[in-house]
Amino acid sequence: MTAPIDIDRLEAEVRGALERRELEQLRALLAATYPPDVADVIDRLDDDDQIAVFRLLQPEQAAEVLDETSLDATRELISELTAAEAADILEELDSDDAAAILTEDVPERQQALLDAMDPADAADVRALLRYPPQSAGRLVNDYFVAVRPEMSCAQALDELRAIVHDSAVIVYLYVVEEGGRLVGTLSLRNLLVVPPTQLVRDLMRPNPIAVAPEADQEEVARIVSRYDLAAVPVVRADGSMLGVVTVDDVLDILVEESTEDVLRFGGASAGQPDETYFTVPIRTAVQRRLPWLLLLFVGGSLTANVLGMFESELEKMVALTFYVPLLIGTGGNTGAQTVSTLIRALALGEVRLRDAWRVVGREVLAGLVLGLLLGIVAFGKVLVDGQIFVLAGAVALSVVAICVWANVIGALVPMAARRMNVDPALVSAPMITTLVDATGLAIYLLIAGAMLNL
Amino acid sequence: MTAPIDIDRLEAEVRGALERRELEQLRALLAATYPPDVADVIDRLDDDDQIAVFRLLQPEQAAEVLDETSLDATRELISELTAAEAADILEELDSDDAAAILTEDVPERQQALLDAMDPADAADVRALLRYPPQSAGRLVNDYFVAVRPEMSCAQALDELRAIVHDSAVIVYLYVVEEGGRLVGTLSLRNLLVVPPTQLVRDLMRPNPIAVAPEADQEEVARIVSRYDLAAVPVVRADGSMLGVVTVDDVLDILVEESTEDVLRFGGASAGQPDETYFTVPIRTAVQRRLPWLLLLFVGGSLTANVLGMFESELEKMVALTFYVPLLIGTGGNTGAQTVSTLIRALALGEVRLRDAWRVVGREVLAGLVLGLLLGIVAFGKVLVDGQIFVLAGAVALSVVAICVWANVIGALVPMAARRMNVDPALVSAPMITTLVDATGLAIYLLIAGAMLNL
Repeated sequence: MTAPIDIDRLEAEVRGALERRELEQLRALLAATYPPDVADVIDRLDDDDQIAVFRLLQPEQAAEVLDETSLDATRELISELTAAEAADILEELDSDDAAAILTEDVPERQQALLDAMDPADAADVRALLRYPPQSAGRLVNDYFVAVRPEMSCAQALDELRAIVHDSAVIVYLYVVEEGGRLVGTLSLRNLLVVPPTQLVRDLMRPNPIAVAPEADQEEVARIVSRYDLAAVPVVRADGSMLGVVTVDDVLDILVEESTEDVLRFGGASAGQPDETYFTVPIRTAVQRRLPWLLLLFVGGSLTANVLGMFESELEKMVALTFYVPLLIGTGGNTGAQTVSTLIRALALGEVRLRDAWRVVGREVLAGLVLGLLLGIVAFGKVLVDGQIFVLAGAVALSVVAICVWANVIGALVPMAARRMNVDPALVSAPMITTLVDATGLAIYLLIAGAMLNL
Repeated sequence: MTAPIDIDRLEAEVRGALERRELEQLRALLAATYPPDVADVIDRLDDDDQIAVFRLLQPEQAAEVLDETSLDATRELISELTAAEAADILEELDSDDAAAILTEDVPERQQALLDAMDPADAADVRALLRYPPQSAGRLVNDYFVAVRPEMSCAQALDELRAIVHDSAVIVYLYVVEEGGRLVGTLSLRNLLVVPPTQLVRDLMRPNPIAVAPEADQEEVARIVSRYDLAAVPVVRADGSMLGVVTVDDVLDILVEESTEDVLRFGGASAGQPDETYFTVPIRTAVQRRLPWLLLLFVGGSLTANVLGMFESELEKMVALTFYVPLLIGTGGNTGAQTVSTLIRALALGEVRLRDAWRVVGREVLAGLVLGLLLGIVAFGKVLVDGQIFVLAGAVALSVVAICVWANVIGALVPMAARRMNVDPALVSAPMITTLVDATGLAIYLLIAGAMLNL
């Protein structure tokens, strides 16, 4: 058994071998190491060492490593290679992976490298690039086994043996009619346990689940995970099969999407798929962030009007002001907790729309308890600050009211979004904070005004 | 080709058939429908119809449907079945899925149902339950094919044919020595293309990647997605093989984790895996939320001290107060955008620690541009409120300074976390908001004090 590898140790071994110029030993060490681990070590090396290590790899492993290195390292490695060398390596990759490198990592050399590639491989890559970014068409792997319904199972197995591409993990065979229409799937495992003379037609599962080349990759991921597939066929509008999207690509999509959810929750929108942090022009980054900030700013500027309405109270007692940021901050924090809990519960199907009132009841109760506990702390804090007893009471009571209110808002907004068929995950923490700010202020100043007779 | 099914239409068909009592037609319709789709329709029906539809399913499909229905529906269906009926259905499921239903959906009937199950199946489930929740041991599927290194490839294929469990998608065979130690893996596809007399020993990939039964499910997902595996073997400390975790379980884990990231970013922590929104006692929910709120409250109470330091300025001009919530709110929103962008960039490897100063430079520039644009709006807002020109200038200048400052904080905090080997995803929006609140206030009041000669 090989436990997850110790990258620090591998890095030290590689550096040591480089220093002692033990290139043959290093070559053997690298050949015995999984490509993602080699890629991690290369990511950590200086530019000169990166290319030195990379040149020791066999072509097929080099391709897999290049597919796994970080953007910086991939660019650096390709820049050190001649177009012919780089093209040889790209040819070893599945066309979807080669297309991803050419569009995301070295877009400026895309044409030159495609021209240097074997024409057939280049044509495969160019075919993928015709589909929009983040679509199923961009992820298509065309190493799949197609069989005819009238074949025997023995003939189907012969078809499988004729496919030479080694890296394809084949779980299903695809049953395709004369004319190219996909009509069924066959699991390799089932094929092995039936009599060889049985017809494919009688063994296949009809009505295969498939996606269109234009389908968004998120939709592809949803289907693969919903139906527990190892690969999903991509089928054109005329019913003919373009290829398959395999589950390893779906895993990558889900990892990517999960960071997009955080981005969204922080009130920033994800950009184009080919972009990375440093490749987005600042102008573009600002353009994307501004509308959202502006909207929140306009919503937030209501707080100035609320405070303006209480000008005379604030003049009579300036100390009222001191607790404004603390109170609205606490409301925002409580609301952010509730909204993230609800987004998750809705996404996992733990809560449905018809549960709305149960949810509100629960959150009111939780807000009450949290508010009472924080209210006690707030009471002490105001007294320690040297303020009068009644002000301490007003702040404490406001904490309770604001916690309850923020919990209700944090529960209702994502449910309202679901009701209006908007993805609840689009509700962000800043949105809730801004909603709670102005209303929380009014609650505080009304309570304080009444208690202090201002 | 079957496109993703139209659940609304399927629901209408099922309801129609139920109403017209066309049970035989309904049985045929259900048999031709994929289990997740049947489960979705059942989720939408009333309790009586749910069980009526469920009873029309064949045992194997019933099991798969029960595995996919929502918590509420699963509980309802099981409560309508006798222990013997429910046990029959659970026996059809892989033991990891049966264990999940018994612990998450009907924990109160766990013992009774296990006692009613076939002793061998029950023993398999009980074995899984010995491992901690969310560990690899809980996800183990024991339908795998073990072969000996000294077998021929033809013999290995015979072993595969002897495994009768139909639902197992088999991609790899596992090579196990006398004594039970896992020594290699064999892809089914490779096995089919070599001469039947070749020895397993010579074809297998040695040093297989494996995980321990105690490994956290997140670690399992990371390994499966890192090495693009279709299944990962779970190996005990003595090297013997317990079973495999298949990629469909990993997909489910990733979907679950992605909602956990949002939860964390909102400042709420995920609970135990067996819990759902409604099954967590409110007392527990409050206990989990309180420490974090309390910490933020104590941090946030600094704002009261900052405001107290500027008491005389605030007394001279109460209107200063009006813009406090707006300014610190804007700082919080800007900071939340930056921090979520950085968390993503760090997670995807687009930004590394050595890029820190480039990142700060970029965020200062972006903050400056965003601040200037928002500052213009702020300037107008203050004038519209009827305040003096110099106050409008002070607020506008503060917006610029606070946007820059919030961007720097939002960029540096996740990088500092990475530096200290803390997961940057643990940095939450409320944390940044609270950090920016007190400092943003001080910036505003210093600028305003200087400009207004207070």
